Amino acid sequence: MPETRLDTARIRAARREIDPVFLDTPLYRCEALEPCLGCAVSIKLETANPIRSFKARGTELVASRLADSASRAVVCASAGNLGQALAWSGRRRGLDVTVVASRFATRVKLDRIRALGAKLELVDGDHETARERAAAIARYDRIRLVEDSLDIETCEGAATIGLELVDTAPSFDAVLIALGGGALATGVGHVVKALVPGAEVICVQPLGAPALTLSWRQRRVVTTDSADTIADGVAGRHPIPAVLDDLLLVADDAVLVREESIVAGMRLLLNHAGLVVEPSAALGIAAILEDPDRFAGRHVVTIVCGSNVDVDAYHRWVSAAPR
Amino acid sequence: MPETRLDTARIRAARREIDPVFLDTPLYRCEALEPCLGCAVSIKLETANPIRSFKARGTELVASRLADSASRAVVCASAGNLGQALAWSGRRRGLDVTVVASRFATRVKLDRIRALGAKLELVDGDHETARERAAAIARYDRIRLVEDSLDIETCEGAATIGLELVDTAPSFDAVLIALGGGALATGVGHVVKALVPGAEVICVQPLGAPALTLSWRQRRVVTTDSADTIADGVAGRHPIPAVLDDLLLVADDAVLVREESIVAGMRLLLNHAGLVVEPSAALGIAAILEDPDRFAGRHVVTIVCGSNVDVDAYHRWVSAAPR
Repeated sequence: MPETRLDTARIRAARREIDPVFLDTPLYRCEALEPCLGCAVSIKLETANPIRSFKARGTELVASRLADSASRAVVCASAGNLGQALAWSGRRRGLDVTVVASRFATRVKLDRIRALGAKLELVDGDHETARERAAAIARYDRIRLVEDSLDIETCEGAATIGLELVDTAPSFDAVLIALGGGALATGVGHVVKALVPGAEVICVQPLGAPALTLSWRQRRVVTTDSADTIADGVAGRHPIPAVLDDLLLVADDAVLVREESIVAGMRLLLNHAGLVVEPSAALGIAAILEDPDRFAGRHVVTIVCGSNVDVDAYHRWVSAAPR
Repeated sequence: MPETRLDTARIRAARREIDPVFLDTPLYRCEALEPCLGCAVSIKLETANPIRSFKARGTELVASRLADSASRAVVCASAGNLGQALAWSGRRRGLDVTVVASRFATRVKLDRIRALGAKLELVDGDHETARERAAAIARYDRIRLVEDSLDIETCEGAATIGLELVDTAPSFDAVLIALGGGALATGVGHVVKALVPGAEVICVQPLGAPALTLSWRQRRVVTTDSADTIADGVAGRHPIPAVLDDLLLVADDAVLVREESIVAGMRLLLNHAGLVVEPSAALGIAAILEDPDRFAGRHVVTIVCGSNVDVDAYHRWVSAAPR
């Protein structure tokens, strides 16, 4: 049992606080992908819900607990998916939600945050600037700050995906997890290591935004000066020490993939699985494409974690090269 | 309680014979579609499974019952989705599956039927020719013929979607159902009329393949000489009398939509819901687009019934016009 900040019994109990529309998501073998990849591939699909990403599993926990407290206001920084999720969960419970995002964030994500009724504040700079601004708002207004991957609700919410994996899947050899702030990886990783310790937990990050992977490899926090990737959902630069500690306990590996592999992964998922995904959600497929020998003949699960894409960029990516 | 050939208690029991990978599919509000459509829209998504359509709900019943009998061989005619489903369900149980299809059927569907290990026989002519040939094979070889929409398993399998709708959905005002042979419409329609009689059951068929809609309107079987639609999954010409009888009991309306509305529906589902769908699965959205006043302000459920598209044709359709 990995001694992370997470608790398996608490994760199981957390399912009751999450709207069922986000739970028990599809998990299925996708044989049409397999000739291209050389291994058995199962997809855990986190996009067929009202906010098109897995993030509401965490914000449902945050919002349901906050709804029971005296304070009704909450703020988070977001690249776009956490903000949509918090807006959705907060609206349902009458919370006052503020989301801080980079003005360079994916437009459609910002539009959806507004449409869901949250107050959206844009900052010049990237996601790290948005995190600083959200923290300042929380201090100044004395309201709850939701810090993705640090706050235990975001990790244990994501971890419910891991429970569904181990409870439903026939045996699998490895799970490929998009690595951004670390909530998804530490959450799913904790459950898998606790309940199916033989399965490999592999985190995947873009080469252009490698901070947490470098940190995991060097076993100390490594920051980067910039991030350059189309995978906007995982483009952090300042890993959180407590999250790294957990990741060191649950991840068997952390790999970096090229942008062209992410695009190839998106295209494969569209053309052979009929799935529209955002770049972060193609990281697992990208990892297989870059190292097919590693996965040959094995049964791999990849979590398709989001589908909020800018339509024009998406069409450009998937039509740019041969299938 | 509509006196169709279907039985609600039997449908509930049937869930136990269906592989869980096909059950309890996502059902969720899709608010991003709503400004374009002028009504509340929920999606029941039947594409996130190993065969990318709802058809396995029926073939699971066929195959599990056949696996318990002495005969291990089965044949069906298919436009492509039933064949994939029967191939999948039969392979799992060691059945000998033959699928007859038109040589003009969607290539990727035929490829998947072969990949799933079924014997595929192609006929010159359309789906009605394939039906005749499948019946001839069954008579000659004395094996089980699966007739889509006539065989009760195909209707009651599809009807499990209706159970999930009425058990899970907050109240809805209407359900939009693609109308082809009639299994989906009579199945879901039976359950909705039995359990939520106030909800409107609306069947949607392409103007280019209107046989069952014309039959429903005239309360007698009407055949057509040809079918001309991109919605290959619903392009039948010879309605089955027993299916029409059931449809007359459960459908509140049957509407016909233009090809350009089907394409517009596919494009909306891609660009605002992130869903790749085959033309038949966009019929519900097409119906809203053609008659927005009818649905204004109401809560409509549409069943996204399949996503097996020819990739090149799909790209052509969705990129052909403005968003």
